[in-house]
Amino acid sequence: MSQAKRIEPDPPIRDPRDSEHLDVWGFADSGFALTPNGEVTFTGDRYPISGKVMPDFLPWARETLDSPLAADDVHESHYPTPIPERVANAAFETELAAGLRAEQIESDPRVRLRHGHGHTQEEMWAIKYGRVTRVPDLVVSPESDAQVRAIVALAQRHRVCLIPYGGGTNVTEALRCPRDERRCIVSVDMRRMNRVLWIDPENRTACIEAGANGREIAEVLARNGYTIGHEPDSYEFSTLGGWVATHASGMKKNRYGNIEDIVLGVTAVTSSGDLARDAAPARESVGGDPARWLFGSEGRLGIVTRAVVKVRPLPEVQKHGSVIFSDLETGFAFVRDVQRAGIVPASIRLMDNLQFQFGQALKPRKQGFAVWKSRLEKFFVTRVKGLAVDRMVACTLLFEGTRAEVAAQERAVYRIAARHRGIKGGAENGQRGYALTFAIAYIRDFMMHHHVLAESFETAVPWSQCVAMIQNVKQRLWQEHAKRGLPGKPFVSARVTQLYETGVCVYFYFAFYARGVEHASEVYAELERAAREEILRSGGSLSHHHGVGKLRQRFLPAIFSPAALAWREGLKRAVDPDDVFGCAN
Amino acid sequence: MSQAKRIEPDPPIRDPRDSEHLDVWGFADSGFALTPNGEVTFTGDRYPISGKVMPDFLPWARETLDSPLAADDVHESHYPTPIPERVANAAFETELAAGLRAEQIESDPRVRLRHGHGHTQEEMWAIKYGRVTRVPDLVVSPESDAQVRAIVALAQRHRVCLIPYGGGTNVTEALRCPRDERRCIVSVDMRRMNRVLWIDPENRTACIEAGANGREIAEVLARNGYTIGHEPDSYEFSTLGGWVATHASGMKKNRYGNIEDIVLGVTAVTSSGDLARDAAPARESVGGDPARWLFGSEGRLGIVTRAVVKVRPLPEVQKHGSVIFSDLETGFAFVRDVQRAGIVPASIRLMDNLQFQFGQALKPRKQGFAVWKSRLEKFFVTRVKGLAVDRMVACTLLFEGTRAEVAAQERAVYRIAARHRGIKGGAENGQRGYALTFAIAYIRDFMMHHHVLAESFETAVPWSQCVAMIQNVKQRLWQEHAKRGLPGKPFVSARVTQLYETGVCVYFYFAFYARGVEHASEVYAELERAAREEILRSGGSLSHHHGVGKLRQRFLPAIFSPAALAWREGLKRAVDPDDVFGCAN
Repeated sequence: MSQAKRIEPDPPIRDPRDSEHLDVWGFADSGFALTPNGEVTFTGDRYPISGKVMPDFLPWARETLDSPLAADDVHESHYPTPIPERVANAAFETELAAGLRAEQIESDPRVRLRHGHGHTQEEMWAIKYGRVTRVPDLVVSPESDAQVRAIVALAQRHRVCLIPYGGGTNVTEALRCPRDERRCIVSVDMRRMNRVLWIDPENRTACIEAGANGREIAEVLARNGYTIGHEPDSYEFSTLGGWVATHASGMKKNRYGNIEDIVLGVTAVTSSGDLARDAAPARESVGGDPARWLFGSEGRLGIVTRAVVKVRPLPEVQKHGSVIFSDLETGFAFVRDVQRAGIVPASIRLMDNLQFQFGQALKPRKQGFAVWKSRLEKFFVTRVKGLAVDRMVACTLLFEGTRAEVAAQERAVYRIAARHRGIKGGAENGQRGYALTFAIAYIRDFMMHHHVLAESFETAVPWSQCVAMIQNVKQRLWQEHAKRGLPGKPFVSARVTQLYETGVCVYFYFAFYARGVEHASEVYAELERAAREEILRSGGSLSHHHGVGKLRQRFLPAIFSPAALAWREGLKRAVDPDDVFGCAN
Repeated sequence: MSQAKRIEPDPPIRDPRDSEHLDVWGFADSGFALTPNGEVTFTGDRYPISGKVMPDFLPWARETLDSPLAADDVHESHYPTPIPERVANAAFETELAAGLRAEQIESDPRVRLRHGHGHTQEEMWAIKYGRVTRVPDLVVSPESDAQVRAIVALAQRHRVCLIPYGGGTNVTEALRCPRDERRCIVSVDMRRMNRVLWIDPENRTACIEAGANGREIAEVLARNGYTIGHEPDSYEFSTLGGWVATHASGMKKNRYGNIEDIVLGVTAVTSSGDLARDAAPARESVGGDPARWLFGSEGRLGIVTRAVVKVRPLPEVQKHGSVIFSDLETGFAFVRDVQRAGIVPASIRLMDNLQFQFGQALKPRKQGFAVWKSRLEKFFVTRVKGLAVDRMVACTLLFEGTRAEVAAQERAVYRIAARHRGIKGGAENGQRGYALTFAIAYIRDFMMHHHVLAESFETAVPWSQCVAMIQNVKQRLWQEHAKRGLPGKPFVSARVTQLYETGVCVYFYFAFYARGVEHASEVYAELERAAREEILRSGGSLSHHHGVGKLRQRFLPAIFSPAALAWREGLKRAVDPDDVFGCAN
């Protein structure tokens, strides 16, 4: 059989400057910080925001949270809080060491700790102020499918628990080790398996190892003129295997699809053997490919080692845009009309007034002309056009495609915007909005350092219930905050972040100042659960893309019938009877 | 929680004229037949082709198959060949009768026979010329989810085998009862559960019972201004439950998606209980909804009773088109460029020269101006444009959408066609092509009556392998035909019937004159298997949308690893340990 000519790219470039923090989000060279003047800045030089001073942020945060937030008012971190002793399994470790190089096996406590948590507020609190009760006892970094197979076989033989690890960015406690797990827990860190194995330009497919993160994939594919189009907010760190395991969604799904649309075939090592396909058909009817059951399996069923994905040539044109509307209902009607018109940009996000303010507060100090221009814009928008600063909302847009496609989309979208009296905010503001996404991920840890607990959570909700759901959630959180006599005011903000024919994805930010609050992290968790109850009651889903992990397990009976839950357990018992993949998600 | 305002439509209209044949495909009032003059015609008045005389067809078929095919040269049908005696289960039947009306329970042999087969050539042969060794012992027609639940509970209690039934149109032997099944087999005919329960215009969803067929769904939705957009060739008879069970694909998937894109939520009765969801989110990450495992499950795991689907407003504009190209490679390059341009019509199908001839041979006798016009067209195409009648191919097009969308698509597609020196064949030829699809389904039985065995089979194949695969399959079938010394010449024809970013769906027709051939149906099956081997070897998939059933089970180890097959069996054993759903697909 003649094969299409394939490209076999060089591996991704490993830059030592890309090392990551162990105790907070992101790259070691980046993060929010305070200047000697007590103003917020961002370290390093990776992001547009890096090196800028943002003088409005702390004052805005103080006012919004109605709380002190002084520069010197910090919650000192005790990272790392006590790390549990290793549970050894000598027989396993001996055979393991015989098959791998020493550098592939790690038992350093901080590395083990890092592999035992993701980025939920509870976990980030625990590693600084609380306690993590169980962490992996060993971290292993395989470099090939054969090594993964060997590790799984050893784990079965020696009764070891395996937990696959990618970027460690999940926000569902998916990596949290079950407290009562007595077996040796081994974290299988897939990140050395990060190659794009081949690109097939004629058939627009590529085969990529599961430990490649979004940044590496983007770099290698772009070098060759392609893109996978999957860009979750975590993409700098999250991996292809993690995307499959969490059923991930990316910013540009309107153009490229979600992970289930992008991934055509999955190869995995399981305790029953390999799930492997030679081919990855565009579409098939074969009674169900079991490898698809790995989507959303959150590490319970096996380890994904590689996947065949769709790739697209890099778009000819990429343009940003933004539009301002008078209020959320109007903005919502706008995105509704865009969806109905069927001409949807690669990304379209509608943020509420609070998030708009948040974005404005993160604007860097401007000098000279820039100051003047910014003031003039503000004047125009608020005085001339009559928008109220406490009601206006913003919608950011990203168009990708051929010149003609993008032009047609822009025309259609801005025409609809005009019907809703939207004011074009320009490409720069749109681009800022998207660039901010990656920087915002760092802000939670900065805020936690200043006594503010914050988290994001999301849902899919039908069109008809969206606005009411947002209102209900905000109202509920304010009520719960007041009921507990928590300090200051809560910050509850929403944005519509994805559009579908039958509904939208809504992303919430929720924060409150927690100094003096007893068991602050647990209190936060209670409020988050209350918000989720409200979401479910208002017609929203349990999760659009973050997943369930352990964080939302208690809600599963609310959405699944007993038979459905039994089916899931039945599958797990059938394919992994010894619970080798014992993350208990 | 406030619900969006829902429409609750009246049930579909049941027209007694819509009764179906029991022994051949389709409506009782329709089918190919011969005029007293020995020319081919089509009975009834349902289709554009109905009532027309097609004088070119038999001569063309004789020449192409190099076989007699005389009007009086028929293979008399012995339908029904002996129908096995009933296997009774008195305890089950007594309790069943207590809960249902008498008309919901049927034991007539011909009805049981019909429920024990689909439309593979082997099954259609067996009911006329051979023998069906096992058929359902009872046919039950529930009218509600509660009745389905009761039937399943009874089946478990009394050890009865249940096989769900929809349109009975599968082409994989999915309905063929396992020969050695000793339990009483009950066919659960879902077609009384055919209502559209509600339409939600604001959220663009609808809830439809699983026994509704495509025609009923289209009628009810269209009455209310909507469409589901799923239009498989079998849609006049096939049901929503069947579509889920076979992982179906429809003609207009480019615009509306395949069944997995259209169906948002599935409710099913299983031997473990109900899989039911209150809500059907646009998209979610919840660790895997087990109801999705029913897609492609071909009746092995449970009975789908209803589904929440996406619906779209009826398109403003629907336009047909057609283009003629000099040869298959040129036509293929054309569809390739259309896919790459990203502006793909709702349907685009490229047929090879033989299928083009086939379509021409089915043209009705024309009179007067129409004759003159047709001759002129032919002259223009063949002499003026220099196309060869034995190489030219045709591509049919269907555009749907707003006026602007359709105009843009037409512009883009015809521009690409011109680049490949395509000649526009006009809307009428395009429309004929699509209308013929539904009539063509009747031709196999007519041909079988005249000693010609025929079948269709399909695959998904990467772009790079498509043309070679088509050639390899044709070559292999000619070889196998010659090797066995079969009469005349084989008819092997292909069309590219769906486009994807990474490949296409190819549909084959294969026929040969079989008078005098011993065990003709088995010989045909051997050749079909040889074709499938060739398809797999050439990079094609086991099936794009027909499924596996029993017909292609032997090929499963060629595409699935042992672990994958074990996972599938493991799931079945876990969720249906008593094999209540014992169709053995």
